[in-house]
Amino acid sequence: MSDRRTLHLNAFLMTVGHHEAAWRFPESSLTGTWDLNHYVRLARIAERGHFDSIFFGDGPALHGDIRFRPAGRLDPTVLLPALAMVTERIGLIATASTTYNEPYNLARRFASIDQVSDGRVGWNIVTTAGKDAAQNFGLDDTPEHHGRYERASEFVDVCLKLWDSWEADFLIGDKASGRFADATKIHAIDHSGRFFRVRGPLNVPPTPQGRPLLVQAGSSPDGREFAARYAEAVFTAQQTLSEGQAFYADLKQRIAGSGRNPALVKILPGIVPVIGSTEAEARAREDELARLQVPAYGLRQLSDFLGTEVGEEDLDRPLPELGNASAVQGHQSRFVVITELARRDKLTVRELLIRLGGGRGHRTFTGTPEQVADTLQEWFLSGAADGFNVMPPLLPSGLEEFVDQVVPILKKRGLFRTEYTGRTLREHYGLSRPPNRFTTHHNQTSRAS
Amino acid sequence: MSDRRTLHLNAFLMTVGHHEAAWRFPESSLTGTWDLNHYVRLARIAERGHFDSIFFGDGPALHGDIRFRPAGRLDPTVLLPALAMVTERIGLIATASTTYNEPYNLARRFASIDQVSDGRVGWNIVTTAGKDAAQNFGLDDTPEHHGRYERASEFVDVCLKLWDSWEADFLIGDKASGRFADATKIHAIDHSGRFFRVRGPLNVPPTPQGRPLLVQAGSSPDGREFAARYAEAVFTAQQTLSEGQAFYADLKQRIAGSGRNPALVKILPGIVPVIGSTEAEARAREDELARLQVPAYGLRQLSDFLGTEVGEEDLDRPLPELGNASAVQGHQSRFVVITELARRDKLTVRELLIRLGGGRGHRTFTGTPEQVADTLQEWFLSGAADGFNVMPPLLPSGLEEFVDQVVPILKKRGLFRTEYTGRTLREHYGLSRPPNRFTTHHNQTSRAS
Repeated sequence: MSDRRTLHLNAFLMTVGHHEAAWRFPESSLTGTWDLNHYVRLARIAERGHFDSIFFGDGPALHGDIRFRPAGRLDPTVLLPALAMVTERIGLIATASTTYNEPYNLARRFASIDQVSDGRVGWNIVTTAGKDAAQNFGLDDTPEHHGRYERASEFVDVCLKLWDSWEADFLIGDKASGRFADATKIHAIDHSGRFFRVRGPLNVPPTPQGRPLLVQAGSSPDGREFAARYAEAVFTAQQTLSEGQAFYADLKQRIAGSGRNPALVKILPGIVPVIGSTEAEARAREDELARLQVPAYGLRQLSDFLGTEVGEEDLDRPLPELGNASAVQGHQSRFVVITELARRDKLTVRELLIRLGGGRGHRTFTGTPEQVADTLQEWFLSGAADGFNVMPPLLPSGLEEFVDQVVPILKKRGLFRTEYTGRTLREHYGLSRPPNRFTTHHNQTSRAS
Repeated sequence: MSDRRTLHLNAFLMTVGHHEAAWRFPESSLTGTWDLNHYVRLARIAERGHFDSIFFGDGPALHGDIRFRPAGRLDPTVLLPALAMVTERIGLIATASTTYNEPYNLARRFASIDQVSDGRVGWNIVTTAGKDAAQNFGLDDTPEHHGRYERASEFVDVCLKLWDSWEADFLIGDKASGRFADATKIHAIDHSGRFFRVRGPLNVPPTPQGRPLLVQAGSSPDGREFAARYAEAVFTAQQTLSEGQAFYADLKQRIAGSGRNPALVKILPGIVPVIGSTEAEARAREDELARLQVPAYGLRQLSDFLGTEVGEEDLDRPLPELGNASAVQGHQSRFVVITELARRDKLTVRELLIRLGGGRGHRTFTGTPEQVADTLQEWFLSGAADGFNVMPPLLPSGLEEFVDQVVPILKKRGLFRTEYTGRTLREHYGLSRPPNRFTTHHNQTSRAS
């Protein structure tokens, strides 16, 4: 099986489930959203299923309308080191913003988590849309979309230099002479760019992975270009197989255009699996979730995604005609997914809210475990996915069902690992430790001389 | 014993010991500085001794001269959540800079650690001296001393508001009606000041302590004023009993002057305990540590602290005459401690380097466990200390010796707790959960109406 292409599974952990009404189910914890033990349980379930990784979204603001749904979240860079202590092999991915952090601090934080987790950390790089976040950092509104991505590129460049700033063989450790390290192996980076001036070196030595797995999640043109240059895994929202195939083909081509090997960048569409032991049971579960939605919540979120107000009076009408995505300064790619979905399936706003309730524009797969596995296999084998970002509607039960009922089918079909073979997250994703630019430079110099 | 004043003990954890030559001892780990397991072991030893807390210093730069001593460190806000998982009761204090962070991010990070640790986090608030750190954040040199403290004050004010931004009774949690929370209990803070504009609210709900224990460690005039307004524990470097008494009296008076209860702010001088089973054995240990010092290392550090170059040619001369501390933009209080020490004891630079080798200006207590306990008791009972910041010269052995040999004497004398009585770090330090400003305001309003 080792030569055969197998899929990658990431568990996207968020509050008590991705469905906006999840908290209203009898089984759901009212305070699980902010409870470490909830996430300990989820991490262990995902590890039991041999998932590549667990993943936390993030933004530095209180998102969503807490009147109708749990909101707020612990800093994922605090959750990950805690979860590293209760798991052994699963990768740990945190989202962090390049708009509202400094590269020295964030490069160091991820290096520290990589050290603490023995090489299991990943960074989902986001540029953070939203006025609410901007106003927590002295700004009046979200910085302009393209400029955010320019800052993000330079931010990641600085981090990559910092992660390379110590060569692997820096340690002398001669207790007799008192020589601890070879300072010529530890480099200032002297970065001076448009957004940042950073002298370096980092104050953390090389970590097990060398650098975190780099993940990207925005599918706008700027986001795709960024992913093509930097990402090693890409999370995306795709509603149909053909949309998924088009996105996959486009991104793989852009990756090749950046001079990178497209096979080494894994594309993982988000899926919301609604599972039942029969198809009817799965449909009933889906209907029950929809029944518990509060329209005021969905309207607020829809208005935020679209950058325009949609009210109660619009519920039984089609989605109003809206302008072009490129004018949107917030979530450009989410804007496209939502407006396309409404247009294609001729949905009223009320119907659209139900379609969005499960995963905010991510595809819902409803059916028996076999049916869900069939669909995953179809997407995987027909050029739409290298794996999936699994977004259970209810947590923990939806993750448990997926791990206990869908994953064994995928394993049996040879589509998914039956045990961990790698130690680090990069190894789970089939990636080696990247070469150090300073060491490489030395070697080239000595070869030339 | 509960009515009697007892002392507080904090374990200051740093690399393989506070003595600059610690790594050269046969027992010392070459890579312990960056090894989670080293700190797991230390945290468990300190907890076995019923210490109030463990503590990590920090700065966002590669400090020190790594040619002669381990340097660099993991981000302490990453270490603490990991250590929270392997300890039960001990407090966990991380240093973080107000100069090189944003208040929203840091308030959130400490709230998250408080949640993950069930109420055991503390924040040592520093303003970060040093050109090396400045140059990692786009600056040419350290921002001016007084301005750093002005920013620090506003930074903490913003954090305090954010930690209060959710009232305790925000949760409705009515699954039947779909009402999750009372949004009127969650407040924007709308802070607009000289350094920061932050809208809020925080995106983390109230945590077990409400806010971290606030710790401060600079003893310059600006640092003391800052401590008087905000600190709940103060770490300080004092060489002699009389200096310790003068500092203690001055700071307690300033605290009262700020309208706060001086008894609720604990002052903990740093001590480097060098322990032997006889006095001669302790002296021999001290000599062995001094013998392993590399002068070039101490000269580099001394030059940094003093803001002036001191070279090999100065080793056998008295410390050169230097200007006034108030002109120093870096470590003002450390400058005073060091120049006073050299002047008072008429030390050559070489002798001074030996005195500084153990704890960079902190007091070394050398002797038998009884003698060390006697000195601690003297400082505690004669108005120089409410407890101690214990800085073992070697780690873990120095902490083990202190816990196994000195702590039992302090317990027997009724000077230190024999078991944990509190659950949270604030409780260990005799502090209650502070009232929420928004809740207090409501109550006053309703009382008035």
